[in-house]
This record gives sequence, structure tokens and C-alpha cells, in this order.
Amino acid sequence: MTKININRGKNNSITDVAGVTVGHLTLNDGDVQTGVSAIMPHQNNMFLSKCVAAVEVINGFGKSIGLLQVAELGQLETPILLTNTLSVGTVCDGLVKYMLKSNPDIGISTGTVNPLVMECNDGYLNDIRGQHVKTQHVFDALAACGEAFKQGSVGAGRGMSAYKLKGGIGSSSRLVELDGCDYTIGAMVLSNMGRLGDFRYFGNAIGAELKQKIHQENYNEEVDQGDKGSIIMILATDLPMDARQLKRLARRAGAGLVKTGSQLGNGSGDICLAFSTANQVAHYGTAIDKIERFPENNIDAAFDGAIEAVEEAIINSMINAVTTSGRDGHKRIGLSDLL
Amino acid sequence: MTKININRGKNNSITDVAGVTVGHLTLNDGDVQTGVSAIMPHQNNMFLSKCVAAVEVINGFGKSIGLLQVAELGQLETPILLTNTLSVGTVCDGLVKYMLKSNPDIGISTGTVNPLVMECNDGYLNDIRGQHVKTQHVFDALAACGEAFKQGSVGAGRGMSAYKLKGGIGSSSRLVELDGCDYTIGAMVLSNMGRLGDFRYFGNAIGAELKQKIHQENYNEEVDQGDKGSIIMILATDLPMDARQLKRLARRAGAGLVKTGSQLGNGSGDICLAFSTANQVAHYGTAIDKIERFPENNIDAAFDGAIEAVEEAIINSMINAVTTSGRDGHKRIGLSDLL
Amino acid sequence: MTKININRGKNNSITDVAGVTVGHLTLNDGDVQTGVSAIMPHQNNMFLSKCVAAVEVINGFGKSIGLLQVAELGQLETPILLTNTLSVGTVCDGLVKYMLKSNPDIGISTGTVNPLVMECNDGYLNDIRGQHVKTQHVFDALAACGEAFKQGSVGAGRGMSAYKLKGGIGSSSRLVELDGCDYTIGAMVLSNMGRLGDFRYFGNAIGAELKQKIHQENYNEEVDQGDKGSIIMILATDLPMDARQLKRLARRAGAGLVKTGSQLGNGSGDICLAFSTANQVAHYGTAIDKIERFPENNIDAAFDGAIEAVEEAIINSMINAVTTSGRDGHKRIGLSDLL
Amino acid sequence: MTKININRGKNNSITDVAGVTVGHLTLNDGDVQTGVSAIMPHQNNMFLSKCVAAVEVINGFGKSIGLLQVAELGQLETPILLTNTLSVGTVCDGLVKYMLKSNPDIGISTGTVNPLVMECNDGYLNDIRGQHVKTQHVFDALAACGEAFKQGSVGAGRGMSAYKLKGGIGSSSRLVELDGCDYTIGAMVLSNMGRLGDFRYFGNAIGAELKQKIHQENYNEEVDQGDKGSIIMILATDLPMDARQLKRLARRAGAGLVKTGSQLGNGSGDICLAFSTANQVAHYGTAIDKIERFPENNIDAAFDGAIEAVEEAIINSMINAVTTSGRDGHKRIGLSDLL
Repeated sequence: MTKININRGKNNSITDVAGVTVGHLTLNDGDVQTGVSAIMPHQNNMFLSKCVAAVEVINGFGKSIGLLQVAELGQLETPILLTNTLSVGTVCDGLVKYMLKSNPDIGISTGTVNPLVMECNDGYLNDIRGQHVKTQHVFDALAACGEAFKQGSVGAGRGMSAYKLKGGIGSSSRLVELDGCDYTIGAMVLSNMGRLGDFRYFGNAIGAELKQKIHQENYNEEVDQGDKGSIIMILATDLPMDARQLKRLARRAGAGLVKTGSQLGNGSGDICLAFSTANQVAHYGTAIDKIERFPENNIDAAFDGAIEAVEEAIINSMINAVTTSGRDGHKRIGLSDLL
Repeated sequence: MTKININRGKNNSITDVAGVTVGHLTLNDGDVQTGVSAIMPHQNNMFLSKCVAAVEVINGFGKSIGLLQVAELGQLETPILLTNTLSVGTVCDGLVKYMLKSNPDIGISTGTVNPLVMECNDGYLNDIRGQHVKTQHVFDALAACGEAFKQGSVGAGRGMSAYKLKGGIGSSSRLVELDGCDYTIGAMVLSNMGRLGDFRYFGNAIGAELKQKIHQENYNEEVDQGDKGSIIMILATDLPMDARQLKRLARRAGAGLVKTGSQLGNGSGDICLAFSTANQVAHYGTAIDKIERFPENNIDAAFDGAIEAVEEAIINSMINAVTTSGRDGHKRIGLSDLL
Repeated sequence: MTKININRGKNNSITDVAGVTVGHLTLNDGDVQTGVSAIMPHQNNMFLSKCVAAVEVINGFGKSIGLLQVAELGQLETPILLTNTLSVGTVCDGLVKYMLKSNPDIGISTGTVNPLVMECNDGYLNDIRGQHVKTQHVFDALAACGEAFKQGSVGAGRGMSAYKLKGGIGSSSRLVELDGCDYTIGAMVLSNMGRLGDFRYFGNAIGAELKQKIHQENYNEEVDQGDKGSIIMILATDLPMDARQLKRLARRAGAGLVKTGSQLGNGSGDICLAFSTANQVAHYGTAIDKIERFPENNIDAAFDGAIEAVEEAIINSMINAVTTSGRDGHKRIGLSDLL
Repeated sequence: MTKININRGKNNSITDVAGVTVGHLTLNDGDVQTGVSAIMPHQNNMFLSKCVAAVEVINGFGKSIGLLQVAELGQLETPILLTNTLSVGTVCDGLVKYMLKSNPDIGISTGTVNPLVMECNDGYLNDIRGQHVKTQHVFDALAACGEAFKQGSVGAGRGMSAYKLKGGIGSSSRLVELDGCDYTIGAMVLSNMGRLGDFRYFGNAIGAELKQKIHQENYNEEVDQGDKGSIIMILATDLPMDARQLKRLARRAGAGLVKTGSQLGNGSGDICLAFSTANQVAHYGTAIDKIERFPENNIDAAFDGAIEAVEEAIINSMINAVTTSGRDGHKRIGLSDLL
């Protein structure tokens, strides 16, 4: 068993990082099994007070929007939205509308805004060609943001599959002590990747056994598929890490993913976005200011926290997901129904 | 004067590369000065027969969609669409709809599709907050594609500014001889960057003089702004370059840009996408096949061609642009009115 | 237990890839516990017939030489040499001398040569400050190259530590079937990373138990250290992968590493170099030639092979290593002495 | 003419950045035309107090050592050494010895050290195969460091060629005002790239004319060669830029290079290393500290300064170089002899 550090945050959630909230809009109607999930990095105007951020593309078979500018500027200036692959355009447009509303200067007296939308392909359970996500759903997910949020088959996770079982939204957190203070690293994932035979439950290679069980009980014929579908991993922290350090942290999300059994498959867009709530960047700032600097010599503790939090967030996305049927009678079984 | 190689392609256009076509949809109505431009890399089903491609992000202050997957897989599987920054979501959605129509397998029996949409901020002349580009405009631009196309203040270039003069769409091409055969490198740009004082016209530093002239004649007060707005550069070739080589080629687009006077400003999203029409990749291919390999030892000729074609395409985007008025009485002067 | 594919190559070695040979020069004398290992990608003149190659820097806390040019050109033009960190300069110089001898054109009628030297820090067991590796040792390691070679505490691996036990040189291979033919992926590692508590033996988390055992038996006090020291992973294949594909393959070496328990620690230079023996590149080539292209749709099989081969190579580096004492009485225990 | 900002630093030199010094060791004896140049980023122990740094590989046809770790950690922990390509191993070894001497903890109670050595190929004028640079030469260059230093055909620049004329060491600086304070950006180059026909002297395309002149006067037959040989560009600043910002700055060095006429040729290793003397990083630091943050909104002024300083440093490397003969009667003409 992988050692699970007891030092989780109070709710074992990404919202243990002060200021972070999460909201969902879920569509659940026959062939329509999809939705939108939103992460608010803080509760003020994200455009005026940007978060230091970084992205690590572990496998770039993905269609996320907004990562280019995060990589260049090390800044995040909108909430993060998650949805299905073919609804990225609509959700992007909705997020732009949301940002325009609260920022009348955008496009007039200042530049534009960089919307961040990430995605996985829920086409196995969802009628993804139908593009059922609408602009209002974006606003609804954003309005639903709070510290408490559901995990599993909700929001963008409604139609997702992980290790050919039901996947979706999962979260976890870890505390890191530095200079006598507790800092938090929170993870949230949208899980939709992996082959069942590879699955590891907190280090235990139970995938082959689960696969056999499913075959014997004729639950579902489709558990032999390859690794397609992607995983989006979000890391939040109040550690004062700069963009370079956050990119290093984000790379370790891949280690958490591998620990659950992933081979980082060709068709799986495995991407991590990491942000810090410390040292926010003023949109109109033009003077040198003073910020805190995180010592690289202590970064291993943050790496450990990120790896553990991502691993557990993936497990949580599966444990909290319920068996779900969708498009053309396709079905994914909830892990809890098998354990 | 920069030496301009006489070996241009027959029309000095990106469409000199066999199979490539370009189309525009232009919106020109008072404060609405924007549009969509489309590039078809070839005339067959792009999803089934993908182009080898690469992207070079010279300055990542940009909101393009689809580059992530191009970088990972070295493949382009849709036409390339250009538009204004805040319409990227709508155009992305339109391109997805276009691809779904001709590919019933997407999202059902195969994965999804990676739409490629690139952008500049035309907010100085255009009511960009109004998000005036609609889905139908995407289809119209795609339907308008042909070998002959307009340059200057058209399509996505309608509201763009280059060196604080009128910018927009420009194109050029160069021939490269290899093994006794002529190959073509074509460039098309959407120009929207630069400071007037820096502008170089085929190597001649005439920017400061133009600036003085404009100030004296009270044409316009806004020519002293910094470098904001971006440039998108597309390189097409029939040389059998692989993705790594195309990325090297794309990096040289930055040299063509610098030759016109750019400092690669902080707020300018300077991005080049390069593709080859050779060695196309079958979507359902699973066997080893034979392809042609371009010899690295001859790549300097391709670099020269790309640099010259991009430089001239930028100049062409300005020379062909007409003086244009737009949002809130803002105006950009066409270079031809000043020479 | 991770499923170990039975389809290993005939010797479960990187030299199962036809043409690849390996040789060692070991220094074992009190405080001097170090050496040089060499990998010949093929048996002809590497400078005249270069291998397609790629590098993936998983964690860049490392001092390897030559990766810059491999990344740009996708080519490897010398044997690969491994040694201790502070001997990189000497080994680089030795490799240059070796290349000059067989290539009288270098530096006269053609350009220079890009020596590839990779390293880990063996300072715990070895008097690394003494810089005991000499030029002749480079020639000796190269001259020793053959299909059969020792693993464990030999060559560059003489003084290395893995998971605070004895590490060093390990190898493994996997067969990949494509179009009815067998291709081979071979891995060789120089292991010197990890924390004992994290160690997984073919998926079994036995690290904590081993640590307890060592503490109880007072073998050694130093098994509680952090993750420092690095791992070099070499992947060889006869699959006709291009540089972009090899880079994707090399990234999966990180998954193999994580499966053995690594957190990709801050101080650990975790780097993978991958090369193919197919489609070699002629130094003086100037014409388009025909090459084979590996279909991306089948790359998952190669990913699986690389991950498994790297994981087993790491285990093999430890299983084959003998308990070794060195500088200042430091000692590392061989895994075989503990199982 | 490119506008040359009058706001140069007091000596128009990289040593205008407080703390920076430069030294040379020149070998000038018949076929031996080479040397070593050293840059000290500050005057204290570089290993204990590291500089924030970044690298931009504009074209990676190069054999520099140490860039990998700079890219990962954003830190520079040794002086920067420049030499010829085939002496990189020796100079690396010499720099290690130099660092070991002043840091008895390296390799004993702490990790190793990352030597930074950069290079160009001076084989046209120098007997580069002879590897004439020895360890003592490294110590001598380091010992020679001071605020005043020679430019042109000295140190590592002794045998270098720029635009097929004599190149070598050049420097320049620019002042950047921020919040009412003057900050400095200094550039130093080792120039060895370019085709004569492309050369631009402060924006004036005089290369073709110079070429004609040389042909007419039978000075030299070899001015028609392609772009081979590389350029190393070092940027130093006291602006409190972080590693991400320094990488953006370093990318602009490429613009300065292009302004002198370079096409960033295939065989030219064009690399920029940028460091800041602000916010130094303590080797043994483990606590959060406070640092200054440079506002991205003002970075364009720094970009301008870097581009101008690099452009002028290249010109200075040529203007200060004297006509030099070397290996096999090869000769490069000093630009001053032609103007």
C-alpha cells in the first residue's frame, strides 16, 4: 500500500486552500450525460488580481484552451472551467461573456482576456456530438461555486470513465509544514483515462481482478479498451511558489497519475494546471513590489503532497462515482459497486 | 534593402503550395470591423488525411486553440481559422460543427477532433466586446476558400492594425530547389503588432519618418502606442519536412517578423504554425508506411524562403490594407496612403 | 504485482536491439568507487551514420552534455558515455578524442562533433572530488563494448545508490509486434535515485519494511536520506520512430521510474535518452530519401514496452548490485542481500 | 539606421551591471588561434550565492554544458566560461576544479556543482583538433577578470568569424528606468555566425557591398560560405527578473541577432543565457524570504534594451576585431579594415 500521509487538509479537498471554491452544472437525461465544472481560484476579480500559475502537458492529446498564455506569463486570470471536448468552444465563449460582464475595461481600455477551459472526451456515455452544453450552463456552474461540492459523476465528470469504470470529479489535499506554518496543496481531477487491467487502488494492483469479475458477471463488454480519454489535474496551493516552481509541481501530478496505473496512453490528454493563491499579480501593476519566495530546498515536501493528493483525488473520483448508463446503452460501473 | 529573392511562386501567395486555398468572411458595419479567414491545407477530408504540422510560440501572449495537440502529435486535422480574440469560442464551435458534418465517425466510433483557431485582438477598430462573429460566418469563410483571395483589410484582418497603421491579411511565397525539383514555401499572416517608429519597409527604417508625417498632418493621435495585438503567421510547404523540421522552420518566421521591425513585444502573441502537404497521415493508419525525408543539410534554403516570405507577407498585409475607421471613431491609415 | 510481459527479448537486455553493444571500465580501490560505461548504438561510424534520437528531461537537476543538439536535430552522432558528475569534462574530452581519431574530417572539412555524456553523483561511496576517471578509461570502456555485459556495481554504476541501497547498471528489453514482425525496445539505466521507504519491487511496496530491517540490524545509518542523485535511462529500439515519437517514448521512461517508487525528487536528475537504429541519417546526405514511418496509432504498445523495460532495468540494477563500501566508510547494501 | 538609444551604461559594457567582471586568456601562435573567456556574475562565492538565470536556445546546433540545470532550477552557480567547441570538456573540467577549490563541501556534505561552459567552433582559423586549451588557461581567464576587458579577437573570440569577417568578443549595455531608478542591461557576445551577404551594420545592409569589395580585391576566397559557427549571447541585468522573465528576455537576444542579418542558420548554435544579479539564491536556504518582483507590464523596456545591446555587442565584436590569419593560411578580415 502506498503510504497515505495523515496530514490531509480539513476536508481533504482542493477547497482546503483558502479562497478556492468549486461548482458544478450536471446534465443527466438519457443520452445526455455531461456538464460543466468550475474552479474559482479566489473570490475577488480574477482579471484584476491574477494567480501565479503554470501548466505541464504530460501528454498533449488534448483540446484545452488558454494554456499557451499561462505558459508564457505564468498567470491565470479567469476561473478554470472543465467540460466535454466538443463543448470547449461554447464554454470558452460563456467564460468570455462572464469575464466581460465584470470587467468593462476589457477590449476597451485594456487588452482582452485569456479564458481557461479544459476538457475530456465523454463520448462513450454522452452524446458528445449533440453539443448539449449551453452558455447558461457555464454561468450556472460558476454561480454554484462553494467550498463544499460533490465528487464523482457530477458536472464535467458526469459522463467520464476512469480505468473503464465510472470516473469524473475527485479531490484531495495535503498539508505541508514550512517554517512552522501549515500550507496546503489541493488537487482536483476530471478523470477519464486508463485501462482496467492496469488499475491500482492505493497501490494495490486490483485491475486485473476487477476485469475478470466484470467479465464473469457480464456487467459490460467494453472494459478491454485502450487508454483513451484524458485526465485533467488541477493543483492549488497557498505556498508562495513562482511559475517555474509550479511547473515542477505540476509535472509531479503525472507521478500521482502513474501510481494509479496509467501508462500515459497515446490518446489520453494528460494535463496538469497548478496555481498559487499567494503573490497575486495586479493587472494594472507597473511598480516593483515585494513578494515571498519559496525555497527550492524544501520543494520535495510539496512534491510529495502533490503526488499523494493527485493519486487520492483520482481514487476519490472513482469511489464517489455511481454506475451510470448513457448513449446507446453504454454503461460504466462505479468502483464502489465492485469493492 | 533586404534582397528579395526573385524566385517567388507563381502568384506570390500561400496558395502557390498545391492544394492550399484561402477564404474570407468580412464584417464591415460601423463599429463592427472584424471577420473570419480560413485556410484549407488540402482539398480532401482533413480529418482522414492529416497534415504534418508544427507550432512555434515566439511570444505566448495569445489565445489560440488547438496548438497543444499539434505540438504533441505533429499533425493538423482541420482547416485553420483566424478571427478576433473574443470570438475564438464561437469560431471553435463552428469549426467543430463543420468537422462533425463531414465526419460521422467523430465522437462515435473514433475520438474527437482538434479544431485549430488562431486570433489577434482587433479591439482598437472593432467592437470586440460585441462578439459579432457568428457560427454561420465560419461556414461562409470555409465555403469561400479558393486559390485567389484578397489581402489587406479583409476577413479576420478587417479590424487589425500593424505598426499602428492598417494591417490584416498578407501572403507571399518562395521557391526552393532541391534535387532539381521546385518546392514552394508559402506564408500567410494576420498582422496586428508593432510600434510605428520601429517599422521597416523591405529593410528601410521608414517608421520614424511615417510617424512624424502622421503627427504633422494630424491624421491620428494613436500612433505612439506600444507593441500590443499579436501576429499569426502560417507557413505552408510541399517539402517533405517532418514535425521537428517544421518547428525549426516556424521559428524562422520570427526572423521575418523582426526584419519588419518588431521587438516581439510583451503584449503581442506572435505565433507561427507550419504545415507540409507531403507525407499526409491517415487517421486510421496502423501499419508502417514509406515516406520521403527532407535532408537537414539543405534546410537553410527553406529557412531563407520562410524568412523572406513572412517578411513580404507582412508588408503585403499593410500595402493591401485600406485606411479604415471603426469603433469610437478610431482610424488606421493604409500604408499605401502614406508612401 | 505489475504484470511483467513475458515477451522479453532473448537476453532481456538493451543489446537485444541488433547492433547495440555495452562496455564498462570499473574503478574499485578503497575510496575510489566509480567508472565509465559506454553504449554503442550501432557498430559503424556513428558520426557518418547518425541515429534518430530524442531526449526527455524529466527533472533537470543534472549535468549531462550533448542533449541540446539531440533535442534540436533529433540525431545522435557518438556513442553514449556514462560516468560520475565531476568526471563529465574528462569523459567529454575523451569522447571527442575518440571521435577525432576515426573522423579526420571533423574540424577540417566539416563541422565539429556533439559528444553525449550523461552522469549521476556517486559521491556517497566514491571520492568524487578526486576526479579519478582519466581519458584512457574512456577508451577502455569503449573498447570493452559487446553484446554481453555485466550489470549492477560496474562501470559508471560502481559507486551509485538506488533507493539508498546499492544501485548502478541495469538492463531489460521487451518485444513489440507490429505488422507481424517483432521489434525490440531495450532499456539500460544508471540508477542512483530514490528514498528507501518509497521503493517498490515489481509493484510491491517493500521499501518501508526493508528500511525497518536495516535499522534493526544496524546495517547502515544513512537510509533515511532524501531523493538525490539522479537516474539516467537509455531506450534503444529498432522501431522506425522519428525524433518526436522517440521523445514521447522517452517521457514514458518516467512512468517506469515512478512505478519503482520515485517521487522525481528535486535533487534527482532524471533524464531519458531514446534512439532508434532504423532510418539512420547520413552525415553528408543532401538528397531526399525514403524512410519507414511508425504509425502513431500503434505507439501504445511501444509505450508499454518502454515502461516495463525501464521498471525492470531499475530492479535489475539493484538485484545485480553487490553490497559495496567506499568513501569514509560509507556502505550501500545490495538488494539481493535483503530479500 | 536603427535608432541607437543614447542611454547606454557608463562603459557600454556588460560590466556596467554592478558586480560583473570579464577576463580573457588568448592563444595566438600560428595555427593556434583560440582561447578562453570568463564572466563572473558577481564577486562573491557563486556556489553559495547563486544568480537567478535562464537560457533560450534559439538554434540548438551547439555543445554548451550546464544549460539543462539552469533551465530546470533557474539558477546559475558558477562563472560562465566560453571557449572553442572541442575544448569544452577541458574547460568544464577546469571550472569544476576551480569550484572544488573554493567549496570544500561540494561532493562531501552537499551535492555537486553545475559548470556552465559555452562554445563556438573556431576551426576555420584555429587548429581546433589540436585541443590547445589547457586547464591552466581556465584559471588564467578567471584570474584576469575585471571591469575593463578587451573586445574583438581576444579570449574565446580569438579564432571566431562573424559574417565571414573577423568576429569574437563584443559588449554593450543599455539603461532602463523603472520607478525613477536606473537599471542596467548588459550584453556580451561571442560572435561566430552569419553569411557576409546578409550583414547589416546598425541597420544598413552593407553585406553584399563588402562581399563584392572583398572579391574584387582578392582578400579572401571564403566569404561565400553558409551560416555555420554559432553565437553565444550573455545578458546580465540588475533588474529583479525571475527565471521566467529572464527567459523571455533571452528570447529577444535572437531579435538583436536577426537585426544584424542572421537567418539563424541550421548549423549555427545560437544561444542566449540571461542572469540577474538581484534576488540571489542561497545554496543552503531553507526558509521563505522576501524578494523584489519585476512588473511584467514594464518588460517591454527591458526587451528594447536587450535587443539594442545584443545588436550593438555583435557590431562591437566585429569593429574591435583585427584581421587575423590562422590555420592553413585561412584569414578573416577585420570590419574596421573595410569601412
